[in-house]
Amino acid sequence: MQKPLYRRIALIGLGLIGSSLARAVRRGALADHIAGHARSEATRDLSMKLGFLDSVHATAEAAVEGADLVVLATPLGAYEAVLEKIAPHLAPGATVTDVGSCKASVAEAFARHLPDGVHGIPGHPVAGTENSGPDAGFATLFKDRFCIITPEESTDQAALDRLVALWEGVGSQVELMDSRHHDRVLAITSHLPHLIAYTIVGTASDLESQLTRERADERALVETREVIKYSAGGFRDFTRIAGSDPVMWRDVFTQNKEAVLEMLGRFQEDLVALQRAIRWGEADKLEEWFTRTREIRRGVVELGQAGRFYATERNGGDGEGDER
Amino acid sequence: MQKPLYRRIALIGLGLIGSSLARAVRRGALADHIAGHARSEATRDLSMKLGFLDSVHATAEAAVEGADLVVLATPLGAYEAVLEKIAPHLAPGATVTDVGSCKASVAEAFARHLPDGVHGIPGHPVAGTENSGPDAGFATLFKDRFCIITPEESTDQAALDRLVALWEGVGSQVELMDSRHHDRVLAITSHLPHLIAYTIVGTASDLESQLTRERADERALVETREVIKYSAGGFRDFTRIAGSDPVMWRDVFTQNKEAVLEMLGRFQEDLVALQRAIRWGEADKLEEWFTRTREIRRGVVELGQAGRFYATERNGGDGEGDER
Repeated sequence: MQKPLYRRIALIGLGLIGSSLARAVRRGALADHIAGHARSEATRDLSMKLGFLDSVHATAEAAVEGADLVVLATPLGAYEAVLEKIAPHLAPGATVTDVGSCKASVAEAFARHLPDGVHGIPGHPVAGTENSGPDAGFATLFKDRFCIITPEESTDQAALDRLVALWEGVGSQVELMDSRHHDRVLAITSHLPHLIAYTIVGTASDLESQLTRERADERALVETREVIKYSAGGFRDFTRIAGSDPVMWRDVFTQNKEAVLEMLGRFQEDLVALQRAIRWGEADKLEEWFTRTREIRRGVVELGQAGRFYATERNGGDGEGDER
Repeated sequence: MQKPLYRRIALIGLGLIGSSLARAVRRGALADHIAGHARSEATRDLSMKLGFLDSVHATAEAAVEGADLVVLATPLGAYEAVLEKIAPHLAPGATVTDVGSCKASVAEAFARHLPDGVHGIPGHPVAGTENSGPDAGFATLFKDRFCIITPEESTDQAALDRLVALWEGVGSQVELMDSRHHDRVLAITSHLPHLIAYTIVGTASDLESQLTRERADERALVETREVIKYSAGGFRDFTRIAGSDPVMWRDVFTQNKEAVLEMLGRFQEDLVALQRAIRWGEADKLEEWFTRTREIRRGVVELGQAGRFYATERNGGDGEGDER
């Protein structure tokens, strides 16, 4: 496709993802003009100072004026309000997409709010770091990452091709997927892992206060200081994903409720089965389960060694290995 | 202390930890002679070929003959049998230690089996990789890692000092701790994270077969291939620790049963509370929980930046970052 792909891209939301996309689009010369909007004045000022926008706007309506591509990059919970505001201001033929971690709810919101002649095509770049804000973004965030786009059968082919070209232009491998299928795949590969990580980190940080209150046996007291100190034994891997943006994740669990609850139910059945095996000392059952899981690890490692679209080290990583 | 610290060290078990300790002891010239025993002939042959032993022995009894330090480096479940065999062959004044991930059960086993005049001092180097076997070991595995030693009040001070000097000699920071306290700290920082990781990886790998059997709606079917492909969203962090040695972990959960079940109970209460918040759309409760956990992550990150005794990258790591 010819560059630039779009005349004017409007980014609603200038956090990690929005600001990274602006930087990547600019680096690839994929748009003539990049307009941005954030609710907070401080974020807008910082974004202009960081220099990844051509114009910044105090309202979403002003930002989308004349745009042929609008990208929602706010937490999912803000979409409805944004769509209501911008709908009357969208140019005919424009495409509206997003970068959220749930897709069925977004498809529904697009269908509900977007006027005829505007193409709503949900998207999800599977990329990120645990850092937030416009200064956390960088132009290579999407390089060698998957970007899942979830068109409907009725989606305009030309609009879809152009959006695919944009994501490929910032270095991603685009995958097309049904939106409900996306939500199930992400529920197990991302949403449930985050929920579990948030849970155990919370459980661990409660140990100190609870036991202190009970004036427990000193030997029984596990201090937060100790949890942190010995976190290399496995816990640290959980703290990393439990450091992610709280508002973003609150909205993910609200919007992908059904799939998350289903996967969580399956997980809990399995966990209770293992709990019972521990209580009754069923060593064979434990060993069998632990052996089975090695296969899937092998698949992940092989994919990492084989493919570009996988484990690229980026800034924001902290070079962790696993230990016992 | 004067080098070499020991005349003859006998390693019972020549896997990742045992073989790494042999390499590190040799590199530091911390012993005159390193004797090794493994049950499998192939492991014994490979160990001699790899060159980190001075002598290899078909029986544990022969390996410990004349040793002033014996290190148990087998899975925890094998300790009883090994201790029974070697007890009559231990030299008076010798120290017997180990490298297992549970300590109260080891202290009891030592008390039960070791003859008078032999010093039983349990130990736990908090170090490892997901790889196993004598060829997976390396001399710097313990460098800048914690090694927890759990002496009793009655433990001989000179024997303890010498063992501490050995672990410091291979680069570790030694921490002395009550054995039951160790088991509680490790239950939350290591054992529970491993159990949870094993569980979710098993849950994920069951999705395909189960749904295939039910001839489910194609959109609902999540294939293992997809779980692996999109594992960068968080799941991958879990597969890493779920790739650890199944027999070792079977024994950890058998031997640290009480502390693991207690931490698991707390975790499950918290998980059910979050599950309920998701089901009822209690967004505020979710956000509050997710915000609270950021604090502990900050502690882990700060420790990593501040201290030597933390996140050293080693071989075996796969350079992973977290994404959504």
